[in-house]
Amino acid sequence: MKIICNKNDFSKAINIVLKAIPTNTTMPILNCILIDASFGEITLTANNMELGIKTVMSGEIVTPGKIAIEAKFLADLVRKLPENEITLETDDNFSTKITSENSVIDVPSKEGADFSYLPDVEKDNCVAISHFTLKEIIRQTAFSIGINESNKILTGELFEISDNNKFKVVSLDRFRASIRKITLADDYAPMKSIIPGKTLNEISKIISDDTDNDVKMYFTRNHVLMEFDETTVVSRLIEGEFMDVNQMISKMYNTKVNINRKELLEAMDRSTLFVKESDIRPVILTIKDGTININIESTTGKMNENLSVEMEGQDIKIGFNPKLMIDTLRVIDDETVSLYFINAIAPCTIKNDNEDYIYLVTPINF
Amino acid sequence: MKIICNKNDFSKAINIVLKAIPTNTTMPILNCILIDASFGEITLTANNMELGIKTVMSGEIVTPGKIAIEAKFLADLVRKLPENEITLETDDNFSTKITSENSVIDVPSKEGADFSYLPDVEKDNCVAISHFTLKEIIRQTAFSIGINESNKILTGELFEISDNNKFKVVSLDRFRASIRKITLADDYAPMKSIIPGKTLNEISKIISDDTDNDVKMYFTRNHVLMEFDETTVVSRLIEGEFMDVNQMISKMYNTKVNINRKELLEAMDRSTLFVKESDIRPVILTIKDGTININIESTTGKMNENLSVEMEGQDIKIGFNPKLMIDTLRVIDDETVSLYFINAIAPCTIKNDNEDYIYLVTPINF
Repeated sequence: MKIICNKNDFSKAINIVLKAIPTNTTMPILNCILIDASFGEITLTANNMELGIKTVMSGEIVTPGKIAIEAKFLADLVRKLPENEITLETDDNFSTKITSENSVIDVPSKEGADFSYLPDVEKDNCVAISHFTLKEIIRQTAFSIGINESNKILTGELFEISDNNKFKVVSLDRFRASIRKITLADDYAPMKSIIPGKTLNEISKIISDDTDNDVKMYFTRNHVLMEFDETTVVSRLIEGEFMDVNQMISKMYNTKVNINRKELLEAMDRSTLFVKESDIRPVILTIKDGTININIESTTGKMNENLSVEMEGQDIKIGFNPKLMIDTLRVIDDETVSLYFINAIAPCTIKNDNEDYIYLVTPINF
Repeated sequence: MKIICNKNDFSKAINIVLKAIPTNTTMPILNCILIDASFGEITLTANNMELGIKTVMSGEIVTPGKIAIEAKFLADLVRKLPENEITLETDDNFSTKITSENSVIDVPSKEGADFSYLPDVEKDNCVAISHFTLKEIIRQTAFSIGINESNKILTGELFEISDNNKFKVVSLDRFRASIRKITLADDYAPMKSIIPGKTLNEISKIISDDTDNDVKMYFTRNHVLMEFDETTVVSRLIEGEFMDVNQMISKMYNTKVNINRKELLEAMDRSTLFVKESDIRPVILTIKDGTININIESTTGKMNENLSVEMEGQDIKIGFNPKLMIDTLRVIDDETVSLYFINAIAPCTIKNDNEDYIYLVTPINF
């Protein structure tokens, strides 16, 4: 194989597929990027067997062929090359030479035939969402995807379509839940899939903020395929039935407050100064007489703060892990947020009137 | 004590003195910042017994007094407070209350009397250098100060004045030496002091890029005191006699090359891809026929690169640890650098014609 490409194009393509390189693996071929110029275009592919990413790069194919190159070495090398034309050439022994200006570099590489192509995914039902919207709904929900949970389902996020065009995304761990709903432009058949959290985190790094162009998503029983720009992402889905989040949500409440989001976020952030690994204390909110009192005491010291709120219903005193509140308040864009409380042991609900977003945060008994 | 100050002034002052807070200590008082409003101005001081920093902050003294507050907690807290007025008040039990907008915070604090003031340093002979120049000479030499050397002198940097106005700064470790010379505006008595590398690294973070204002330095037998803006820095000096660097420098050479600094730096940077902890290889430079050939081979792969140079004298083949070359080439501002070689085992000298800077890099036998 011999190809000629531009350094910046090459670097961009490598950084896209690099997201599917595993952090550690016992199979050296999984640490490689396949560069394939066999079929009239130059593609780069990485595949960790759970997530695979393929992207097309512009460039000239002098001699068709393919080769697998150690991904992190290739990324570092191309970044360090001058902004110029790069020639990549392989010989019959699957060794690779990269030439750029005055530099000739032999890079570690393997036979391309050893590399697993992305699985074939039937492209039957396409769900289209703009880059921007997909990136936003991931940002607004991915923080509550469970990490290292023994229940595999909690490590993924539910993507659900119902009532033709209602699209709902749900993530939850043992302490909280995030629900984000949007209305799609077109109608679709009902579907439910659980996408691994890792997949969502990686793809949100490679999709743009573009509001005009769509990411096309195709769901099958075991896989989701996403297409955007010159890139194709294929991820395994998580098998099983996602928790019924509707059961957790109650329309009933005894206390409602409207509060400036930024002020509450900053007060919660200050309260974390009094929480240590060895001394976990709740921050206690006392809602009374149009005021929310925020109080925390620990061996480090104490903080006491009053914020005025719009209040409806009963007085309440409730404790939280401030970090959980902060994660939620950070992803909301509204200037004012509404908090709904039932009592001191039921989860607090943070949502807007349209219920575009619903967040549940479990309190701490104190 | 009761003082009122502005959040940004407070934050700025804390971040200056924070540079003298030790990373670990068994003496809790050393982790504190002393806030002293006893003498008609508000000063903040931190002192790790080797390096001490004091700075004056503007603000209103309602009741004079002093208090020692845990430094990192205070820095985090003030950063998280709204941009507004802050009131700091202590009671008779040395507990401290910080009030800002709606927030009242009790912070961990200790009796100010436990705190060690900065040592008194006689201000006899003042050496004045602009902020910018001092920052630059530290940047251009501090990288070769020895770290964890058993010979304590190597962990410091020589500051020397001779011939009235010749100021020379020298640092060296086992593999290289950096020498930087400037001519001072005024005349001074001869002096030699060894300043700890840690002191130089910390003060270069708090001095500005200002070319108009001077840092005033006062040297005594055991200490250096530096004054700039509202800040005073006192550091212990390292005792002993610094190596005579003149002995190491030879005017004699057999090969001289002039080369584009950026091209050489980038080639050296690429060559590091082939150096691993477990497999340290030299990069080999072959200088011949107006060309410098840069070659490295390791288990990872190999690189071969040719750069054209202006050359004088004999051909030479010499090996280096590319990281040492990179550190040196990075701090030089000239577009073209001159490299002088004696043979394959003597250090290579990199200097300009005026010898404002002289760097020695020891080769690797290959």
